[in-house]
This record gives sequence, C-alpha cells and structure tokens, in this order.
Amino acid sequence: MIVNPVINTMIKHKSVRKYKDKVPSDDMIQTIVRAGQQAPFSYQLCSVLLTRNREEIPENAPLLFTFCVDSHRLELVMEHRNWKMIMNDLSLLFFGIIDASLMAENMVIAAASLGLGSCFLGNTPYQAEKIVRRYNLPSRVFPLVQLTVGYPAEELPVRPRFPLDFTLFEDSYPVFGEGEIDEAMRIMDEGYLAQDYYRYYNYMVPLSGKKVEAYNFDNYSWTEHISRKAGQWLRSSHKLLVQLQKCGFKVTS
Amino acid sequence: MIVNPVINTMIKHKSVRKYKDKVPSDDMIQTIVRAGQQAPFSYQLCSVLLTRNREEIPENAPLLFTFCVDSHRLELVMEHRNWKMIMNDLSLLFFGIIDASLMAENMVIAAASLGLGSCFLGNTPYQAEKIVRRYNLPSRVFPLVQLTVGYPAEELPVRPRFPLDFTLFEDSYPVFGEGEIDEAMRIMDEGYLAQDYYRYYNYMVPLSGKKVEAYNFDNYSWTEHISRKAGQWLRSSHKLLVQLQKCGFKVTS
Repeated sequence: MIVNPVINTMIKHKSVRKYKDKVPSDDMIQTIVRAGQQAPFSYQLCSVLLTRNREEIPENAPLLFTFCVDSHRLELVMEHRNWKMIMNDLSLLFFGIIDASLMAENMVIAAASLGLGSCFLGNTPYQAEKIVRRYNLPSRVFPLVQLTVGYPAEELPVRPRFPLDFTLFEDSYPVFGEGEIDEAMRIMDEGYLAQDYYRYYNYMVPLSGKKVEAYNFDNYSWTEHISRKAGQWLRSSHKLLVQLQKCGFKVTS
Repeated sequence: MIVNPVINTMIKHKSVRKYKDKVPSDDMIQTIVRAGQQAPFSYQLCSVLLTRNREEIPENAPLLFTFCVDSHRLELVMEHRNWKMIMNDLSLLFFGIIDASLMAENMVIAAASLGLGSCFLGNTPYQAEKIVRRYNLPSRVFPLVQLTVGYPAEELPVRPRFPLDFTLFEDSYPVFGEGEIDEAMRIMDEGYLAQDYYRYYNYMVPLSGKKVEAYNFDNYSWTEHISRKAGQWLRSSHKLLVQLQKCGFKVTS
C-alpha cells in the first residue's frame, strides 16, 4: 500500500453524523465545490444546491448540499444552439447519476482534506417533490443525493470494507466459494461489532411482519443490517417512478 | 480558493487518452482500489473488474477497470442470512450507480496522486452483454462504466467548467437570464477552443439527417459537441433496457 496525502485522506475517511457549531467559511465552500466541478463528466449534468439554514438540516450540520441531475440547464444550453434534447431519460439519468456522484465524491474528499466531516443522505430521491418545492427546482432537475458537511464533533474509526479479493476481479468474475462469502461477512460483521457501530447510533432496522427480533447490539452487525434494508424495503419502484415523473423524467418508455 | 495536496490533485485533474508502455505496479493497483473501497456507500454495491491485456483496452492503456453494479454478491450475503432481495431494481440501480461512481472517482484521484492518468469510457452500459461474456459475469451484475489507467504520454491543460454561479445555488434554484447562459457557454466554448481540444482529438460529432456541416475546428466547441450528442443519440431507452434485462435487471416494474 502506497501512502501519500491524497490516498491517506481517502483511506482514513469515515462518515460523520455529529457536528460542531462552527460554520465552514465561504472560501472553504467554494474550494470544495470547485474541486467537485473538476471531476470528469459526460455532460456536466450535475448542479448543486446549498443551504446553511441549520434548522432544516439533519444531524444539526451547518451545511447541506443537494446534488441534482440537471437536464434543465443542459436543455437551455442546447436551445441556445438550436438543438433539442433527444436522449431518452433512462440514459440521461444514468449519465447524470454518474456525473453527480463523481462530483459529490470529490467534494467529500476535498472537505475531509480541510478537516471537515460529511455524511450522505440516501433517501433523497424519495424526497424529491419536497426538495423541488424547497429550492424552487424547475422541471427536469432531479435531486439525487444530499450531503451534510461541517466540523466533526466525534472521533470515529475507519469502517471496515469487503476484502480486496471480494471486490477486485482480474480477467474473470469468480464463482464464490462458501468460505469466501463467510470470510467477507465475518470481516464486515466483526469489524462493525468491534467498533460498536450500531450501539453507538442506537439503531437496528425493525423487522416487519411476523419476524421476531433475535438480535441485540452484541450480535447485530453490518450484513444483518443491509439484509434487512434490502430485504424489506422498497419492494415496488412506484414511489421512485412517481418522484421522477414529478420532476419531469419518464424512464419507462 | 484554498490549496492543499488533495485539492490540488483534484483541480489539476484532466482525462488522459495517450499512455506510455510502462505498466503501473501491483502495489499501485491495490492502493488505488483500496482507496476506492473506502468511499462512502449505501450497500457496497460496486465490484471492479480489471484487465491488463493491452490488446483489448482502448487507447492502448495498460489497465482497464470496469465498475459494476453488483447485486449478485449482496444477494449471496443475504442468502447466507436467510434474507431475499426485495428492493426493486430501479432503486437498487440508483443506489448501485452512486456506490460505483463514488468508488470510481476515488480511484481517479488516487491514480492521479500517483502520477497516473485515466479516462472514463461512457459507452459501457451499451456494451454490457459483451462485457458479461468477456468476464463471465453472473446475472445481477451490471457493467456501468470503464476506466483506462496508465502513465500519461501527453501533457494536457486543465479543462474548463461552467462558472461556479452556474452550478452552485444557495437556497433557491435561479431563473437563468439570457446573459448568464451566454456567459457560461462562452466560458466553455472559448476555453475548449483556446486549448484546441477537438482539433487535437480530430473529432466532431457527425450530423445526422439533412443537416449540413457548418463548423470546423476553429469554431466547433463544447456546447455544440454535447448538443449534438444529446440532440441526436439514444432517442429510445430500448437498447439500455435490453442490456439491463440481459444482466437480470428489470427497471420497468
């Protein structure tokens, strides 16, 4: 493993959910967004909303960025050149989600390099209609993901990840043996348990239906947590399709 | 603008399309992927394919990474905990495209910090079936975007971006005035023209139908380029839906 200030900032990064009162400076904000803008892109499809109104920001963070897939702005540019958007919305969203996420990750790491913490809010697409009203978004702008940013008020360990050989595959995707899956799960679960992650945040995904809770903070860990999320929530795409439609995007044709 | 080694690496980044013969070391590759893995994620939905077989890599790069939205691996983990994937594929893809892109951008910047260049290949989703065969991908793994990586064999300037006030909006999305749109377009177009970008790559998007070419490398620039791409290509989502289906993803229900 080679280490330099850039790699070091990345491998030490962890999401922060408790913030100090101190507000990052305008210069910091501009620096972070400019660093975000230089991420490679396909169509510059991302625009960024900011609020410093702490009362409406989760986790009492001083800054909230909202990354949007913005076709509106591109369509205005195209109009000025006598072109019309032809690309279908599904492809546009794929390109736009990538553009927005590349920019967002630059901002996460740029913020970290300035001593700031951050945390993504994954529920953003399901809040699209509310965000549209809050920021007066025109049609063809879709709020994809939000990021709280501020000075961290907690000291956190680096979180575990799947082993490298469970993530990087050279020339051929492997057939996983039982041992490899167990080992990857063990590393994630023992890692999170050793850090008392879920006890610290005092959160377990509740069980739906007739399932009886058999876990506590001594054995509830990452693989159980994500299994409950992906195994219980968002069975239908209806809600997301409705939010996309309200923003003027139609992916099903 | 605050500058430190991290910000500096980001704001100086540009995509590279010509590479030296020299191959990055195993240590570099592992460092870059490890830095990628520490990006924040929702479900660790990204897996990464690598090939060093130069003959099949565009731009004669020594390394080609393919970032995949990998539900297969997550489903195996869930199976080991007696859970089944319930989340609809559209939501899963949204989360997965974000996870994969966050990881990819960390890898771009980590590579840059080690003196390596890189370039995204945006056509990947439309090549999914071919990539599935090449890497023996199981169902429920979707190749999202590819990245060439290697030692740069060209010295390139930093590419222009939209002005900050055309990208970052505090508290309310603006109604753009004609002047602002013109100014943003001017900055992009004059910036790319000053760098002779399209002449250097000797490429203009061809016009379809009866449109007559009225541009040359003295006036063809970024806003015309993206207008032609978004204004002529991918009118139907059919191709992308087919590729998704071939990988076991169904977004329309």
